[in-house]
Amino acid sequence: MPISGFPEWLPPQRMVEQFVLDKIRSTFESYGFAPLETRAVEPLETLLAKGETSKEVYLLRRLQEESSSAPATDDQLGLHFDLTVPFARFVVENHGKLVFPFRRYQIQKVWRGERPQEGRYREFLQADIDVVNRDTLPFHFDTEMPLVIGDVFRSLPIPPAVILVNNRKVCEGFYRGLGLPDTAQVLRTVDKLDKIGPEKVAALLAETAGASDAQAAACLKLAEISASDGSFVDRVRSLGVDDPLLDEGLAELLQVVETADEHASGLVRAELKIARGLDYYTGTVYETQLRGYERFGSISSGGRYETLASVGNTRFPGVGISIGVSRMLGLLFGQNALGVSRSVPTCVVVALPSEDQRAACHRIAAALRKRGIPTEVAPTAAKFGKQIQFADRRGIPYVWFPGSPDTVKDIRSGEQVEADAASWTPPAADLHPTITNL
Amino acid sequence: MPISGFPEWLPPQRMVEQFVLDKIRSTFESYGFAPLETRAVEPLETLLAKGETSKEVYLLRRLQEESSSAPATDDQLGLHFDLTVPFARFVVENHGKLVFPFRRYQIQKVWRGERPQEGRYREFLQADIDVVNRDTLPFHFDTEMPLVIGDVFRSLPIPPAVILVNNRKVCEGFYRGLGLPDTAQVLRTVDKLDKIGPEKVAALLAETAGASDAQAAACLKLAEISASDGSFVDRVRSLGVDDPLLDEGLAELLQVVETADEHASGLVRAELKIARGLDYYTGTVYETQLRGYERFGSISSGGRYETLASVGNTRFPGVGISIGVSRMLGLLFGQNALGVSRSVPTCVVVALPSEDQRAACHRIAAALRKRGIPTEVAPTAAKFGKQIQFADRRGIPYVWFPGSPDTVKDIRSGEQVEADAASWTPPAADLHPTITNL
Repeated sequence: MPISGFPEWLPPQRMVEQFVLDKIRSTFESYGFAPLETRAVEPLETLLAKGETSKEVYLLRRLQEESSSAPATDDQLGLHFDLTVPFARFVVENHGKLVFPFRRYQIQKVWRGERPQEGRYREFLQADIDVVNRDTLPFHFDTEMPLVIGDVFRSLPIPPAVILVNNRKVCEGFYRGLGLPDTAQVLRTVDKLDKIGPEKVAALLAETAGASDAQAAACLKLAEISASDGSFVDRVRSLGVDDPLLDEGLAELLQVVETADEHASGLVRAELKIARGLDYYTGTVYETQLRGYERFGSISSGGRYETLASVGNTRFPGVGISIGVSRMLGLLFGQNALGVSRSVPTCVVVALPSEDQRAACHRIAAALRKRGIPTEVAPTAAKFGKQIQFADRRGIPYVWFPGSPDTVKDIRSGEQVEADAASWTPPAADLHPTITNL
Repeated sequence: MPISGFPEWLPPQRMVEQFVLDKIRSTFESYGFAPLETRAVEPLETLLAKGETSKEVYLLRRLQEESSSAPATDDQLGLHFDLTVPFARFVVENHGKLVFPFRRYQIQKVWRGERPQEGRYREFLQADIDVVNRDTLPFHFDTEMPLVIGDVFRSLPIPPAVILVNNRKVCEGFYRGLGLPDTAQVLRTVDKLDKIGPEKVAALLAETAGASDAQAAACLKLAEISASDGSFVDRVRSLGVDDPLLDEGLAELLQVVETADEHASGLVRAELKIARGLDYYTGTVYETQLRGYERFGSISSGGRYETLASVGNTRFPGVGISIGVSRMLGLLFGQNALGVSRSVPTCVVVALPSEDQRAACHRIAAALRKRGIPTEVAPTAAKFGKQIQFADRRGIPYVWFPGSPDTVKDIRSGEQVEADAASWTPPAADLHPTITNL
């Protein structure tokens, strides 16, 4: 009955996911990003206008349409495959009601109709931030994205993250300065480096972009450059290519690396082979690796887009980055790297001496809940041993025994003390389930 | 560009929605419900097996299927139309990994392909709780549902809620005891009372269920009964019908009313005309009205289901209730009944004296964020008047001026004081946007 590519977590894993989502959300909000949620569907033409994923779209059809001979009354609708395209559409639709620069975050499911493979889902959760402005967007916003993402990852009990950054202006300026005018074709070809290796890329560059051996070699040299500091600039310069767009790209990329280094050392690395498949990026591009999980690819990606949204002559350029939450959790769960201290939110089970005392037990539970202590009343008036087992099987730390006076037992240590439901408080570490880095 | 039936809120409304969702979630967790999220899609056969909404399902089709002549490789998938049917499927699929009784909450979008009308959406957010057990589920769980929902609504700045409760055993036992064996048909007919009125219901009862005038009148008398206390029992008895199922239903319904009354006076009302359209309810049924919004119908509904899920000979009976979050917010937004104190999470804007001080301003912002204060750095080094305007247009209360020493200004009062980013803290009421009952 599971459907391939549509993952479902059991409640303990969902608790980990919620913990992660809460951290993501509070970090996004700490930078002033406002929440947004867009509908799950877009007109097919909106989905097809952008990006290379057109073949992966799920279309919707009402069941009753099938059985009637009347034509569909709706325009074709499809499920969104990312959160950037719906956001751009939302900005265009609501630009008169928004204050620019507009910073928003969006945490939602997206769907892709592709054939599932390891770590690839058809339904998955993304957490995006973007800033858009009217007409032009100052470059410093590109330098802020890695700071936010860095703060998110540092707030989670996971391996360190490294954000790999490049700038399409560097590549395009370099290719142009090298005498290869079809820069998009070169970029697409170099993007295959990790898949097919340098020899085949060189051959393809000759074949599809008319590159000489020396030009192809220079493209490969550029793609090899990787540095955690500003040293990449000299390494690019040493390849002897000169172009104003290259200069602009290098200055931008340097600004991203230096800003990140000042905020958190080792967070960002200039990696000049990064390209990102999607068409709409025009400058900075980001990918993110988790240490120890490099082979699984990027878990947080994005970039600058100058032309995704426009109304008449007014453009709304933006920059954004997306965390692949399902992808990241799928990898970590797959390695048993994350767990939770209990399988329910409950901190206290109120034991039930007899069924006719249920109302009294409800009152005890209400008094505890009122002070923020998650509490359940035992389901049946079984023997106390069975009621303790009920708590134990779920990892619930405390059982409350009504009496004169009431007592509460820490079932891990066996310690039992007198307690008043109006004032007893568990240690802070026991109040909610805790997430553990296994 | 808006698509009828697919609502989208602007960020201030989304902030209200998140506030409501946070309250719902923390209340659900305070009762020990564990989080669950199921995939958005189910096999069509799962969706069609239950409920009356089969005609409202959205089916999925991959875009590439359309252009190829090959047959679809997937079984037909549709978007779920509620969260109960997917939950029942999840329990059946994972019963070996769950501990029973299993309490879960689920807050997700659902989709219905119906024609939209006022207050009806095609995509909307539901927040559900359910308890299921193996074989049998003690009745007291039916009495707990209204307590949870009552606590949720009392935590929100909205009009008081009244939960209307009935029990299908009361109706079915009554109809049977009255000599009308097709109780399902009678129930469906009486359910039309609010739409078509008593005369037409009486005529339909004669026509479709073979009711005599006296029998139809008795059915209508039963439907008129409404009481906030146990007095409904005598009023039903006075109609002179006798049936063991009726006795059982009355005892159950009385238990729900009495438990709720002890927890929160006025929260629950026995309302004997409530039936709920969906087929799968077998005992208790719930609906919820907001005072002043009664004409818009129920914003939280549910009931007991004995037979929704089973594996071989093992049944998993359950009881649950669902809050129609989008429906409720749509009504309240429509009446301008809910607002928020600012349009962004930001509490402080760090003013930028000149672009070359951006790194220093980032450090101030980082120090404030570290202590949980949402902070943005101004987008440009404009004149301070313009930077204050940037904050003012978003309702951000504080602007921070770097200097020797730094100062922070409350732009509402104009008060400006010396401050240190390592220790300054705003009043608690200013830290996050506050939700207001307008």
